[in-house]
Amino acid sequence: MLPPLFAWIRGYNRADLSADLLAAVIVTIMLIPQSLAYAMLAGLPPETGLYASIVPLLAYACFGSSRVLAIGPVAIVSLMTASAVAPVVEAGLADAPAAALTLAALSGAALIIMGLLRLGFLANFLSRPVISGFITASGLLIAAGQLRHLLGVGGGGDTLPEILASLCARASEIHALTLVMSLAVLGFLWLSRSRLRAWLLCAGLSPALAAACARAAPVLAILGTILAARLLGPGAQGLALTGAIPPGLPVPGLPPFAPALVLALAPAACLISLVGFVESVSVASTLAAKHQQRIEPDQELMGLGAANIAAAFTSGFPVTGGFARSVVNADAGARTQAAGVFAACGLTLATLFLTPLLADLPRATLAATILIAVLSLVDLPALRRVWRYSRGDFAAMLTTILVTLGYGVEPGITTGVALSLFLHLWQTTRPHSAVVGQVPGTEHYRNIERHQVSTCPGVLSLRVDESLWFANARFLEDRVAALTAGRPGLRHVVLMCPAVNRIDSSALASLEEINRRLRAASIRFHLSEVKGPVMDRLKRTAFVDQLSGEVFLSHHEAICQLCPPSLAADQPRLTEGAA
Amino acid sequence: MLPPLFAWIRGYNRADLSADLLAAVIVTIMLIPQSLAYAMLAGLPPETGLYASIVPLLAYACFGSSRVLAIGPVAIVSLMTASAVAPVVEAGLADAPAAALTLAALSGAALIIMGLLRLGFLANFLSRPVISGFITASGLLIAAGQLRHLLGVGGGGDTLPEILASLCARASEIHALTLVMSLAVLGFLWLSRSRLRAWLLCAGLSPALAAACARAAPVLAILGTILAARLLGPGAQGLALTGAIPPGLPVPGLPPFAPALVLALAPAACLISLVGFVESVSVASTLAAKHQQRIEPDQELMGLGAANIAAAFTSGFPVTGGFARSVVNADAGARTQAAGVFAACGLTLATLFLTPLLADLPRATLAATILIAVLSLVDLPALRRVWRYSRGDFAAMLTTILVTLGYGVEPGITTGVALSLFLHLWQTTRPHSAVVGQVPGTEHYRNIERHQVSTCPGVLSLRVDESLWFANARFLEDRVAALTAGRPGLRHVVLMCPAVNRIDSSALASLEEINRRLRAASIRFHLSEVKGPVMDRLKRTAFVDQLSGEVFLSHHEAICQLCPPSLAADQPRLTEGAA
Repeated sequence: MLPPLFAWIRGYNRADLSADLLAAVIVTIMLIPQSLAYAMLAGLPPETGLYASIVPLLAYACFGSSRVLAIGPVAIVSLMTASAVAPVVEAGLADAPAAALTLAALSGAALIIMGLLRLGFLANFLSRPVISGFITASGLLIAAGQLRHLLGVGGGGDTLPEILASLCARASEIHALTLVMSLAVLGFLWLSRSRLRAWLLCAGLSPALAAACARAAPVLAILGTILAARLLGPGAQGLALTGAIPPGLPVPGLPPFAPALVLALAPAACLISLVGFVESVSVASTLAAKHQQRIEPDQELMGLGAANIAAAFTSGFPVTGGFARSVVNADAGARTQAAGVFAACGLTLATLFLTPLLADLPRATLAATILIAVLSLVDLPALRRVWRYSRGDFAAMLTTILVTLGYGVEPGITTGVALSLFLHLWQTTRPHSAVVGQVPGTEHYRNIERHQVSTCPGVLSLRVDESLWFANARFLEDRVAALTAGRPGLRHVVLMCPAVNRIDSSALASLEEINRRLRAASIRFHLSEVKGPVMDRLKRTAFVDQLSGEVFLSHHEAICQLCPPSLAADQPRLTEGAA
Repeated sequence: MLPPLFAWIRGYNRADLSADLLAAVIVTIMLIPQSLAYAMLAGLPPETGLYASIVPLLAYACFGSSRVLAIGPVAIVSLMTASAVAPVVEAGLADAPAAALTLAALSGAALIIMGLLRLGFLANFLSRPVISGFITASGLLIAAGQLRHLLGVGGGGDTLPEILASLCARASEIHALTLVMSLAVLGFLWLSRSRLRAWLLCAGLSPALAAACARAAPVLAILGTILAARLLGPGAQGLALTGAIPPGLPVPGLPPFAPALVLALAPAACLISLVGFVESVSVASTLAAKHQQRIEPDQELMGLGAANIAAAFTSGFPVTGGFARSVVNADAGARTQAAGVFAACGLTLATLFLTPLLADLPRATLAATILIAVLSLVDLPALRRVWRYSRGDFAAMLTTILVTLGYGVEPGITTGVALSLFLHLWQTTRPHSAVVGQVPGTEHYRNIERHQVSTCPGVLSLRVDESLWFANARFLEDRVAALTAGRPGLRHVVLMCPAVNRIDSSALASLEEINRRLRAASIRFHLSEVKGPVMDRLKRTAFVDQLSGEVFLSHHEAICQLCPPSLAADQPRLTEGAA
């Protein structure tokens, strides 16, 4: 697997350049407030958000496979970072920015190892109900966590009960000016998100200009509130401000690797890698499909891993492919990863020249930006849709939401994954099977409980509809025992295996046991419609030799031989099955 | 679920009585040395082995469903008891007999809870390779652990490396008289097991008497070595003896339930319950099948749970249904659980009157009894059989053996279960699927890579051979994307679902995504041969309405409609697939 190092450079032309440059300008404007806001969400100094959006973008451009994915801090990974870093800081192992660097390095290493070992399939074990429940719950947690900034009170908390209790306890401390400014910014952002574009179009602006202005709204909110804070004078009447941001670019440096720190952060790093990977891949494949491109999941792991390593060495924190920024990038016409490189340049300029301006930025403005962004993640109606379709999936989703809200992000996602796996395994412990009979006049055999079919009294035909493995093998033994008990006239049992793709050692032992027991009761045991690869494997064992009956290619062949029409003279060959 | 309290009493007659009495005598004779030996193996005073064989037998007779299962201490559960109790004793939480009582109570409670919640299916997750590897490794561990008794040296250890290292360190302390006696007993037991019966038959004894004598051999060894020890005089020349056994019956009493003790023993209790249940159920169902009876797994849980609770209250330790004793019981002609009740009476008499005799029993004799019994559990050739059949099962089995030998019984079985589940899940992440074509002249559709079939150029028929769920859904998306890429003439994709028993929410989302992507490429997406229950569920969603194509009852119907013979005039309708 060669890294697609700047694969997009080949054939790069003037048209690509101008498209990418335009997209980069739009993305840069959007990323400045977002980067600051997500750094605050992760509990880190605001400049780390800008740093995390520069070099990781370049690293992904070298190793990633998507052409339009925009890498940087995203809401859920920032929340997970905050929740992973907090206990480490509390235990005195490191300060928050240092712990975030180690976390990014570990997460990058986990992604690269998964990529090298082609373990991308592990992400498949995060089922959609679990992911969707986790995203909804994280959105609610993030929104609740921003309330204190919007109200100008202190407090904290990692879970919904903690956050709400902390807010209630400080309800008397609400800072009126902060609240007024928060409501103004929230109203402005909400209107610009839902209405501004239509108004500007009505006002006669070109669609492209209208869209660009609507997207620039957060920047306007930032500029407006900075201006307001400056007008309020030094101290800004108690408004919480971002404070001085060190000017200049991040100094590259090694993240701390104390063993205790690494051990404490490793589980969270693995979860962050998985969640970040799933989020990034689903964004990337949606966008790729729209543009008739394809992405390579294992290559994506390498790209994301490189981006996180880059973040770890340049004072950032864990990053991944973001939905909003990637969509904006694609919509703005980005054609290659050059757009990402240009956006990185834009953010570098911002870091160099705009930071003095940002010292007076009210924190409430950033909180409002986050709140508006994450509320679009909350999808509670999905609960009702999933409930209607599958009770098991609903249980997994609801559990993920409740545990995430009540106990935090890590217990939430691990409980969700464990529960969905358990439910799946539990459902597979009973193999689907059906007693079948012949549809009269055809060679088709169908479930006697659902179709009008004929059966032969001396022959029991049992169709198995799943691969046989250790968890469902014993149920097959029981099923055969129950079906053959109390049928003295029974001479043959035929197991029809059209849907059996695998028979593992445990299931083979069960088949041997069934064969032994039926033989003791003078009943012959046959198989029919065994798939080629399964038969090849069975032939390597003693089972086929010990089998009291035969293996038939088609079930009809089995019935013709075991219940020949000649018998029809002696006994009523075919009896009608249930309708 | 009503307990089958002495269900066997109804219709009990004289013939049953004499058969059961005879079986009880034979089993009692066999159980005396076995009970003492397994108590020693569990690291407990020898009398606890006798106690554990009395009341638990009665409790099982009340609640269990097997008529011939004999309950009591067994080798593997005794080993697991020793390994669970040792750390608790070391931590000073309780002495060994008290901890064993708590362990039995917890294990009984776990079994009863599993029975009430009908969780017997959990035992299915112990696959046969894991169980078989675990039994082999436990047999080796037990055998190695007996060597120090056979050599008359001290030492200990819970894992094979520890045991061997401890033996090597004490090689100079080997007690010659103990070694001689050990070899004599081993030789005698081995001969009586393999040859004695044949010799007695040659000597003119009746087959029943010959078998009974052969089975009484361990009792002869015990009597012989007690005599030898007495002849050696007080101190028995340094031979390690069993020592004084308190006479009389166990005094019923509550096991200790200190929270720290319960917490420390709970995980081991759960594992012991599961392993004991699997061992017991497999013995019981083998014997039941032989006598055309059936056992109820959930009822078995209640019976075993009651037996363990009984053991906890009468100075015993964890028990389960033993293979050897149950087979002997069945062979000796036991017809009902009355045989168990009579054997309990026999053991009570032994406990009352034979214990003074047993004080002079050399420990080496018990060790030899254990060694001969457990070596029959070791089945290393199974490794080769499993290797030939399935590499994955082999990996699970070998890992279970190595981890059990190297790290002990609990890590061994948990690693085995986790690995076998992981391997199973990993295999199911790629759904079996095949592009199919029409077998000329029939309505059958087969894999184009395995059969000579014809296909229609504008139609892609993909058969899925497994239920679709979250771990394999994304692979289906990828498969369709790969198959449709670069086929500009493609107009229809038909997903043939004859083996799809379930489509979970994640897989439904994947199908929606496939539909969306194909629609964007102007390809219609159809389904065929969807099973009734799956279709019922799909109809509750928006998917069927959004589907760009149709749902066909049979795949042939789909092909007839999408690739009608009339098209054959304009284009070569059927192309030959690969052979």
